[in-house]
Amino acid sequence: MTQTASSEFARSTAVERQSDHSFSAELDAGWKVAGAINGGYLLGIVGRALRSLGPKTPDPLVISTFYLGPSADGPADISIRTLREGRSTASYSVDLSQNGAPTIAAMATMGNLGELPDDVATTATPPQLPPPEECIDAAEASEKFHKAAPIIDRFDMRLDPATAGFAVGKPSGRGLLQGWIRLVDGTDPDPLSLLTFLDAFPPVMFDLGRFNWAPTMELTAHLRALPAPGWISAKISTRNIAGGMFEEDCELWDSAGRLVAQSRQLARQPRG
Amino acid sequence: MTQTASSEFARSTAVERQSDHSFSAELDAGWKVAGAINGGYLLGIVGRALRSLGPKTPDPLVISTFYLGPSADGPADISIRTLREGRSTASYSVDLSQNGAPTIAAMATMGNLGELPDDVATTATPPQLPPPEECIDAAEASEKFHKAAPIIDRFDMRLDPATAGFAVGKPSGRGLLQGWIRLVDGTDPDPLSLLTFLDAFPPVMFDLGRFNWAPTMELTAHLRALPAPGWISAKISTRNIAGGMFEEDCELWDSAGRLVAQSRQLARQPRG
Repeated sequence: MTQTASSEFARSTAVERQSDHSFSAELDAGWKVAGAINGGYLLGIVGRALRSLGPKTPDPLVISTFYLGPSADGPADISIRTLREGRSTASYSVDLSQNGAPTIAAMATMGNLGELPDDVATTATPPQLPPPEECIDAAEASEKFHKAAPIIDRFDMRLDPATAGFAVGKPSGRGLLQGWIRLVDGTDPDPLSLLTFLDAFPPVMFDLGRFNWAPTMELTAHLRALPAPGWISAKISTRNIAGGMFEEDCELWDSAGRLVAQSRQLARQPRG
Repeated sequence: MTQTASSEFARSTAVERQSDHSFSAELDAGWKVAGAINGGYLLGIVGRALRSLGPKTPDPLVISTFYLGPSADGPADISIRTLREGRSTASYSVDLSQNGAPTIAAMATMGNLGELPDDVATTATPPQLPPPEECIDAAEASEKFHKAAPIIDRFDMRLDPATAGFAVGKPSGRGLLQGWIRLVDGTDPDPLSLLTFLDAFPPVMFDLGRFNWAPTMELTAHLRALPAPGWISAKISTRNIAGGMFEEDCELWDSAGRLVAQSRQLARQPRG
């Protein structure tokens, strides 16, 4: 299926134009985790508003987002300020607000991933993990987990058994999670769903045996190529856990073996 | 020496308050590289303006900066918008403009590095490199190089011989640079000079034999601890070179072996 226009993701990230640079959106409770709307889903909404600003710059090349407070399901307002509009790229600042206060603030440079040069000299290698059918289906999580994180029902997500020890009380302690992801209705990935996938997996701290809520302070995403159809494989890791915070790096690889998206976030450590 | 108030760096990143949330600065030509003011120096200036907003939040914990166009030496205006002020952190949006147009736009969350919890569970390891006196002194670069990059005279910078092959026409092709850095007048590092160090080394593309100008599109820095006095060691690497862009990661380690700062930037590939 490639009809993104009718996909659940497209519907739930829809924005309605209110004026040249302002939009409204309806945050869907199905994308909640631990009581708040997921940050990756919010990125998808912000990306969709930015995409509608111009046909020459449909794709976020880089987007940095600061999470100022939890977002609730219900209406949100998106207000955009133009920083610079050039020939092939355009940069914007974005506030997403609820009840008059920004819950996230972002900046992005938009471009056209389909028109980038086709050079590739990447030395990073895709995550090594078993095929999706040999991985652990996140849908098999407990009813309690589904209730706390309805977002997992938005995806078809499979966790590499080698990094999913946390699910059976045996986290590896390495700070590494790997898995496969696609939208639950089978819609192929596009740049906006990649933004959402970057913050869709369980927190990497699970692999360190720390299971509490780890709020994101900031997340920067680079989109580097249009994804090929099919599954996306993901590698999530952390290397610097200190001072009550940790960084979480996510790489997304497409079915053609391209590193299509990279992100790094800074998050507060769970207290438990 | 620890008198940062009188250091060359402190003087050249000074800002003058114009009103509650606006400042003026004088961009110093001594921080130019390839004809434009260096992005790391600009980060230092932005950090200094943010620091003056409140004594409880002197340090950038995370700052994301979009480079919208080259900055020239001479006057600049800094205008700050409050996104959220909390008990221990505060988030701001910042424009640095010249002649009425923003050349960089940033967002930052400020806090107090000296008051963070003292837990460290970092798995990253410091770069392995010879002591500064066995490294290549960047000050020994050609007169032509000094003219093109007067910024190198602002630092005492030593390059690991194992990753400095580019200087003698033998780049390793790995996409890795390592070295030592401190301010040229011996002033000990602080959070603001760390911001500058993150974008002070030669572009990592030099190690791939690509020597042309690689403009930064976006750079996000995390500061994770107050640096101990003395040399800072740095590791700069890239793993995803594709579509006319590359990411550049920088880690800064202090003399006590702490990973004190991490950054990732997205830059355009040099054309040569």
